[in-house]
Amino acid sequence: MEKTTAYINANKQRFLDELFGLIRIPSISSIADHKPDMVRAAEYWKQTILKAGADKAEIIATAGNPVVYGEKIIDPTKPTVLVYAHYDVMPVDPLDLWKSPPFEPEVREDKIFARGADDDKGQSFMHAKAFEAMVATGELPCNVKFMIEGEEEIGSPNLEQFCKDHKEMLKADIILVSDTGMIAQDIPSITVGLRGLAYLEVEVTGPNRDLHSGLFGGAVANPINVLAKLIASLTDEHNPNTIPGFYDNVMDLTAEERAEMAKAPFNLDDYKKAIDIKEVHGEDGYSTIERTGIRPTLDLCGIWGGYTGEGSKTVLPSKAYAKVSMRLVPNQDHEEISLQFQKYFESIAPDYVRVKVTNLHGGQGYVSPTDSAAYKAASKAYEKTFGKKPIPFRSGGSIPIISTFEKVLGIKSILMGFGLESDAIHSPNENFPLFNLYKGMETIPWFYQYYTKPLSSESEKLA
Amino acid sequence: MEKTTAYINANKQRFLDELFGLIRIPSISSIADHKPDMVRAAEYWKQTILKAGADKAEIIATAGNPVVYGEKIIDPTKPTVLVYAHYDVMPVDPLDLWKSPPFEPEVREDKIFARGADDDKGQSFMHAKAFEAMVATGELPCNVKFMIEGEEEIGSPNLEQFCKDHKEMLKADIILVSDTGMIAQDIPSITVGLRGLAYLEVEVTGPNRDLHSGLFGGAVANPINVLAKLIASLTDEHNPNTIPGFYDNVMDLTAEERAEMAKAPFNLDDYKKAIDIKEVHGEDGYSTIERTGIRPTLDLCGIWGGYTGEGSKTVLPSKAYAKVSMRLVPNQDHEEISLQFQKYFESIAPDYVRVKVTNLHGGQGYVSPTDSAAYKAASKAYEKTFGKKPIPFRSGGSIPIISTFEKVLGIKSILMGFGLESDAIHSPNENFPLFNLYKGMETIPWFYQYYTKPLSSESEKLA
Repeated sequence: MEKTTAYINANKQRFLDELFGLIRIPSISSIADHKPDMVRAAEYWKQTILKAGADKAEIIATAGNPVVYGEKIIDPTKPTVLVYAHYDVMPVDPLDLWKSPPFEPEVREDKIFARGADDDKGQSFMHAKAFEAMVATGELPCNVKFMIEGEEEIGSPNLEQFCKDHKEMLKADIILVSDTGMIAQDIPSITVGLRGLAYLEVEVTGPNRDLHSGLFGGAVANPINVLAKLIASLTDEHNPNTIPGFYDNVMDLTAEERAEMAKAPFNLDDYKKAIDIKEVHGEDGYSTIERTGIRPTLDLCGIWGGYTGEGSKTVLPSKAYAKVSMRLVPNQDHEEISLQFQKYFESIAPDYVRVKVTNLHGGQGYVSPTDSAAYKAASKAYEKTFGKKPIPFRSGGSIPIISTFEKVLGIKSILMGFGLESDAIHSPNENFPLFNLYKGMETIPWFYQYYTKPLSSESEKLA
Repeated sequence: MEKTTAYINANKQRFLDELFGLIRIPSISSIADHKPDMVRAAEYWKQTILKAGADKAEIIATAGNPVVYGEKIIDPTKPTVLVYAHYDVMPVDPLDLWKSPPFEPEVREDKIFARGADDDKGQSFMHAKAFEAMVATGELPCNVKFMIEGEEEIGSPNLEQFCKDHKEMLKADIILVSDTGMIAQDIPSITVGLRGLAYLEVEVTGPNRDLHSGLFGGAVANPINVLAKLIASLTDEHNPNTIPGFYDNVMDLTAEERAEMAKAPFNLDDYKKAIDIKEVHGEDGYSTIERTGIRPTLDLCGIWGGYTGEGSKTVLPSKAYAKVSMRLVPNQDHEEISLQFQKYFESIAPDYVRVKVTNLHGGQGYVSPTDSAAYKAASKAYEKTFGKKPIPFRSGGSIPIISTFEKVLGIKSILMGFGLESDAIHSPNENFPLFNLYKGMETIPWFYQYYTKPLSSESEKLA
C-alpha cells in the first residue's frame, strides 16, 4: 500500500482541482430547474471513473435523475466492493448567509467551502481517487463497482427500482459508503446506525383569498393561527412526538447497550457552545447522544404563510404551510408513520379550515453489525491511518436507501464516513477539511486491503 | 349642485385616465426600494390639486415620506373641510395570484383592477375630482384643505409630528376621509367606529446556524416547533387572545347598542360563501359583525422559517419569525397592549431558545358620534344620491391616525367610505367598481353643501 499512499500524496492538488470541477455543477436535485445540471454532474462522474481506470462506465437512465455505473473486474473469484455515493446536493438558501458563493468552492483555513464539499461530493470523490491510486500503482486487491445516484437528497425515489432492474450487474460482497461523519478529527468512528425518515408537507386553507385582517379578523379563522395550534399538538414538553401509536414499534435498547453508547466521547458544554444554545432540549429520560442516535423525532423543517416581507402588512392569509420531518428508528416503518401522521393531522383539524397532507418522501432506518468481516476491515483501516480504533456510532441522520440495498440486493453496507459535525452539511457555508479529504483517500485503500486479505493476528495487522 | 353633477358626468373618462396615472406609480410605503415612487406620487397629487383649482399646493417633507398639502380659502368666515387621504399602498405579493399586473390598472366587468384602486388612490381621487367640479362650476360652498400622506399603510409614523408642527395651517371644522367601506352598493353606510392596532414581529432563535435535522434533531430545540407553541399559547378555542390583561380595558357595549348593531343587514350564508369557508370562527358569545366591529383580535399576518421551497430539504433551522397583528377596540391603548404582548411572549419563551419582539406599529381605535352636524350632513348626502339613509357601522379596520387627529388637532373626522368588501383591499386583485368611484364623486359635493348650509326641515332637505 505504500505506493498507493505515495501516489495520493503526489497528486493532492490535481485531485482537489478535479473535485472543484464537480462541485461547480449546481446539481440540486429538489429543484426542477437544475435538471440539466444533474446530467452534467453524471457525465463528470462517468469521466472521472473512466480516467481512474475502470473497465467501463455508463450513465443509466431512471424515471428521475440518471445513475452512473462503473466497474473494474480484476478477477471474478475475488471479493467485489460496491461503492455507493450521490452526485446531487441540497438547496443553498438562505443564500445571504454564505460567505462565499455555494458553487464556487474555495479553500479557507484548510477547509473547502461549498455546497457538496462534504455531502457528498467531497466524500464520494475520495473513493474515485483512492480507486485511481490503487489502479495506477497496481495495488488494487479486488473488484470494484461504482453506483453514483442523483436523488439521494430527495429520498432516492428511483434507486430501489434501479437495484431491482440491475441485480446481476450490482452483485457484490459489500457496499461501501462515505456519506456520514466521524466524532472528531482525532476520534475516528464508524456509523453503525441510521435513522429512518418520514417527510410530509401540510397545507391549511382558510378563506379562498387573502383577507383584510381588520375587516375579517376575529370572525374568520386565520390559517396561520390554526397551523400553529396543529403543530403545537404534535409535540409536548416531554415528548418530541404525541401522535398516537408513534412509539409503538420503537426498538428499545438494553441497559447494557445504552451504557456502551454512553462511553462515546461527548462534551455537552462544547456541544452547546458550538451551536450557541443555552440548553439542549429533547425527550425526557434520554441523553443528547441517545436523543439523536436511538430515539425518533418530529422537526419542522419549514413554515410559511401570509406576508413575510419587510415592514408591517396587515393580512388574514388564505393559506399557511409547513414541512414536517420525522426521524425514525429501527422497527418504525416510514409508510405506516406517514399514514399515522396524516390521519392524526386531519383528525385534529377544526372544521373551519381545510387541511391537505402530502407525503414527500421517506425511508427506513438501518443498524449495522459490528462483528462482520467488513466492520472489522474498516476498523483496522482506521486504526492503520489514525493510530486508534474507531468507535461504533449511531448517527441521527438518514440514508434511506441503505436498508433498501439489504432488502433488494441482499448486501450489507459499511459506512466509512469522514465528515465532521462542523462541516455544516445542508446549511450555509458547508465545508470539508482538507485533512479529512486526504485522510479518507488514504484510509479507503486499507479497507480494500484488509477486506480482501483478512489478517489473522494483531501483530500481522499492524505490521 | 346640478352643475357639479353635470361636470362630473361630462368628465368621467378623463378623471379615470388621471386616476390611472396615479395608480401606475408603485408607491409601496413598507418597502424601502420604493422611496422614489413615494416622491413621484406626492408630486402627482400636488399637480392634481393645483389643476383642480387650489390656491396653493406644496410637498412638505417629514422624517419619512412627504405630505402633500393644498388649500382653497374662499371665505375665512365659512366652514373649512380638511380632506385626509394617503397616496401610499400595500405591498402586492403574492404576485402570482394577480390576474393583471397590480400597477397596470385595467377595467374588467366595470371595475378597476389594481393595487390602490380602492385603498386609497381610488377613494382619495373622488375628493380631488369632486373639488375640481365644485370649483369649476362655482358651486364650492366652503373652504377646503387637503392633507395627503404617504405612510398610512405603515401606521403614519410621522403624521402626528406633522400635525403638531402645522396646527395652524391644518385648522378646520371637520376632517373628511374616504378610506373605509360601505355595506353594499345598495346599502350605503357611514363608518362610526374603527379598531385600533398593535402590530409586532417576533423572532425565535435556536442554534446559531441551520443544522442537519438528522444529526441534531431530537436534541436541539427547533425554533419553528417552539414558535408554533408560543403562538398557540396566545389564543384558545374560545378566545382570540389569552394574553393576561388584554381585555381589561375593553369597552363593552350595552344590550341596546348590541341590538341596534344586529339590525344591520347581514347574511351569514352569503358571507361564508363569498370567502368559501365552511364555518366562521371567533370569540364565544359574539356575532360575526360584533367579532369584527366591537371585539379585539389576534391574527398572524405572516410566518416564515426554515426551508420553504419546492421539495423536501431536511433542516433544523436557526430562526423562525412571525408577524402578529392585534386589532383593538375603544379604551384599549395600543402602546400598553404592545408592552403586554412583549412581556407575555418573553415570559412564555423556554430557556432553550432566544426570542426578540419588535413593535412595528400601532394606533388607537376611534368612535364617532352619530348626532353631530357632520354625521347628519353626510347622512343627508348619501340619502340624496343613493335614495336611502345610510346605516351607521362599526368597521373592523384601523386608521390609527384618526384618533391622533382628535388628540392633536382637536378635530373630529367623518368617514365617508365608498369601498366594498369584495374590493379585496390589501389582497391580490384589489378592485374598485366604477359605480362606487362615480357615486362617491357625486355624493361628496352634497356633503359640502349640507355641512356648510344645514337645512332645517326634511322637506327642504330633499328639495
